[in-house]
Parts: sequence; structure tokens; C-alpha cells
Amino acid sequence: MSLSRLFVDHDLGPGVEAPLDEAQVHYLRHVMRRPDGASLLLFNGRDGEWRGTLEGRGKKAAVARIAERTREQAVEPDIWLCFAPLKRARIDYVAEKSTELGVAVLQPVVTHHTIVERVNVERLRANAVEAAEQTERLSVPEVRAPMELGRLLGDWPTGRRLLVCDETGSGPPIAQALAGLDDAARSAPWAIVIGPEGGFDAAELSSLSRIKDVMAVGLGPRILRADTAALAALACWQALVGDWQRPTPRLHADYCTSRGIV
Amino acid sequence: MSLSRLFVDHDLGPGVEAPLDEAQVHYLRHVMRRPDGASLLLFNGRDGEWRGTLEGRGKKAAVARIAERTREQAVEPDIWLCFAPLKRARIDYVAEKSTELGVAVLQPVVTHHTIVERVNVERLRANAVEAAEQTERLSVPEVRAPMELGRLLGDWPTGRRLLVCDETGSGPPIAQALAGLDDAARSAPWAIVIGPEGGFDAAELSSLSRIKDVMAVGLGPRILRADTAALAALACWQALVGDWQRPTPRLHADYCTSRGIV
Repeated sequence: MSLSRLFVDHDLGPGVEAPLDEAQVHYLRHVMRRPDGASLLLFNGRDGEWRGTLEGRGKKAAVARIAERTREQAVEPDIWLCFAPLKRARIDYVAEKSTELGVAVLQPVVTHHTIVERVNVERLRANAVEAAEQTERLSVPEVRAPMELGRLLGDWPTGRRLLVCDETGSGPPIAQALAGLDDAARSAPWAIVIGPEGGFDAAELSSLSRIKDVMAVGLGPRILRADTAALAALACWQALVGDWQRPTPRLHADYCTSRGIV
Repeated sequence: MSLSRLFVDHDLGPGVEAPLDEAQVHYLRHVMRRPDGASLLLFNGRDGEWRGTLEGRGKKAAVARIAERTREQAVEPDIWLCFAPLKRARIDYVAEKSTELGVAVLQPVVTHHTIVERVNVERLRANAVEAAEQTERLSVPEVRAPMELGRLLGDWPTGRRLLVCDETGSGPPIAQALAGLDDAARSAPWAIVIGPEGGFDAAELSSLSRIKDVMAVGLGPRILRADTAALAALACWQALVGDWQRPTPRLHADYCTSRGIV
């Protein structure tokens, strides 16, 4: 049986008592049926991954008593995904998949042609936490409150490169654009911007073009839905610019066994 | 209002009467409320895309009377996706997204560690048709019946290259492997193989390694779910080897207007 793996906010270190929230306690006791003393893995996005044991604190509360570190925290690429809100199943999927693909920040953007106006930020965050817990990621992307595209661009951080996936086909192919980057561009912070299903309007395209380090790219001859474009662009960026360029660390056999990875 | 776009099996050409099936007639009349004489777009994966008009043939039947061609059929990359079956929502998503990403063949493979044994091929095909209809694709991927991995590899087509996404990290990064291909490899037919959540067993890894043109690649330091790995690998393959390398054809303004693409 693989170990339960949980994201917590608390600092992690030897001997620490990390409080678990009510949902986590319910999950461990009633879904996974873990007794007191069961081993857990915990991460907080800062201190790496730690093994701990479940200790009850009454009927509904529990802590994880932290023992030893199982993995060091790694530096992850600084890549934002800025996307127009989508209907519920699709936006859930974007949160889950982009977490697996290593996104650092999820920034919903409201555009002129955005159809879905409301975003449940807490729900997106819960999806991101669950995806990180289940796929061995050591951090959880930050999910930001929705922001109007003009405002986001008006206050754009100096030096952050911007990759715009443009269905109208005015940009070069994504691999050609990313493979040709110089070292300064490769080590810069980045953001991917995906438009709404209806596309950007003229004022938005003009605001985008005023960003200093903006690059419009094409994603091939077929029209992609916005959620597909987001994940395809993120995968290509990781492969060509991000941390997929490094050889994948081979997982140790005992590490795999402890998690039920065959 | 954008035109309804339908996949049909029938040959398409000027003056042809293409029969619509019961589900299509129901969709046009009762969901989209199209009257007789309404314009439609049709494609069959062979003859390009054609504009036609809806003609009733009694209470439940209708045909599309074909008028003029709106787009030429394009040659698409010969890329198979071989994947272990997944639970329902995830396998639906793989069918939909891989269709948008231009996969030619969806081949479910049964492996030793496959958890889900049954595959609803008709349901996968319906997902693929719907994704092609809604995203301007001119063809629908072939959805094959599930096959045991050993049998598939035992009968592997000569010359078809095989990209194996390998979580154990024994392969080079995907972009490095694909960017370094020679012209013969680039123009060859390809397949991507994604293992089940539990990984391949030793006999399967050995069968894979006996394929002549096999290449194992890594998809970065985070563990990806099988559906995420499939779509990420397909996006990277299209960007670096497939038809995303060509500049995206800019859509004509009148073409966009006719489809409600703003």
C-alpha cells in the first residue's frame, strides 16, 4: 500500500508536529482507514518532503509527527499560465494538468470575449493541491484571483517574458520560436497567455503587443480548444525551455516501493 | 451564429446527397433548431470540407445537399497513440484532446499492470468525432480495438518509429531526443506508447527494447498521470517532428465569420 502524501502549510523539520486540517483527518481516518502511528509523507513547497506518523489529538483532530526528510526541495521553473476562465470541468482539468506539468502560478484573466465570468479560486486551488499530492510534486502552484487582462498587462513585471498562443496564425511555430532563444531568455521568468474561445479583441492584441518581451507563436494547423492550447503550450515550454531539458532523475527502487510505484 | 459542422462517411462532391444519421438529424433539428435549407459544413476525412444545405426526408430523416468545397483535404502526420485504458473521464479526455492534437490512430493496449480492462471503443470514437467536428479538423482518428501489448509489439509494422514515455527516467529529455532526429526519422511513421499507472513489467520493457526503432524519452522531473503524459508527448512530437513545424495558415476573415470565430 502506498503512503498517503499531503500538502501542509506548516514548517517541516525533525520532531515537528504539523497540524492536519479537518478534511485531511477525515481522509486519512475514514477514506484511507489509517490508524494512529501510520506513516505519511508531507510537503509544504519550501522544506522538501518528509516522512511523519499520524498522531490523534481527540476525535476529529490529528497531527503528523515529522521524522526524516525523504526528498530535498528542488527549484522549479518560474512559469505563469494566464488563461481566460472556462466552464467547470475544463477549468478543473487545466488546474490539475498544469500542476502536473509544473506551472508556478495560475492566473485567470478576464477578457472582452470571456464567456465564463466567475471563477471559484478555492476550487481551483483544491484541484492543484490534489494533483501535486498525487503526482510527487514538491510544491503547489499559486492560484491567483481573476484579473482583467488590461490591468494585468498594464502592470506587467519587468523582465517576465510572455508567450502568446495565437490562433490566427501570425506567429512562428512554437518549437522554432522556443528553440531559438538565447541564454538570457532561457533563464528569465516566463508567462504563457491563452485567449478565450472567442479570441482576443483588437484592443487586447494591441496591449499584448506593447509588452517588451512578448512572443506570439502558433500551435499547428488545427484549432485547439483553450484548455488544450494551454496544456500543449506548457508541455512544449517545459520541454524546450523549462526543467524537462535536464535528464529525469531515476527514482530509487526503495523510494518507488514506499509509494507503491511498481 | 456559426455553422453546424458534421462528420459523415459518405463521399462528398458537388450535388451529392449525403445521408445524415438519426443522431445528426436530431441534433440539427431539436438541439440546434435548424430549418430545412439551413447551411451546414461536412467532412469525411477524404474529400476536404464542403458546404451543404439541410433537406428533410420525412419526419426523422434528412440529407445534406452538397454545394461547394470550403477547404481542401490536408495530409496529416501518421502518428499513433498507444495507451493503457484509463477510467472513464480520463479516457474520454485522452480521445478528445489527442484528436485536437492531430493523432491519426488511437490504440488502447492491455498491459500486465493495466487496471481498467474494458474499453468502450464506440464511446471513444464518438468523443473523437465530436472533437474533430468542433475544432475544424478535417479527419477523425481511427479508434482501434484494445490489443495486448505483446501482440501489438510482436506484429510491429516495419519502419514505424516508437517513442516510449518512460517514468523511470532512463531516456534522454524528449526535446533533446526529437530535435536530434535525421530526415529519415522525421518523415517516418511514428507511434507514442504510454504505460499504465503501474508502469510496464520487465517482460514488456524487454519486448519494447526489441523493436528496431524504439526511443525511450523522459518528460521531466515530476511524475505525470498517464493521460497527462500522453497529451504532453503528443504536443511535443507535433511541435518538434509533426505538422506544428509548418507556419500556421492564417484563417481568412470570411472563413472565420462563417464559423462564428471572432
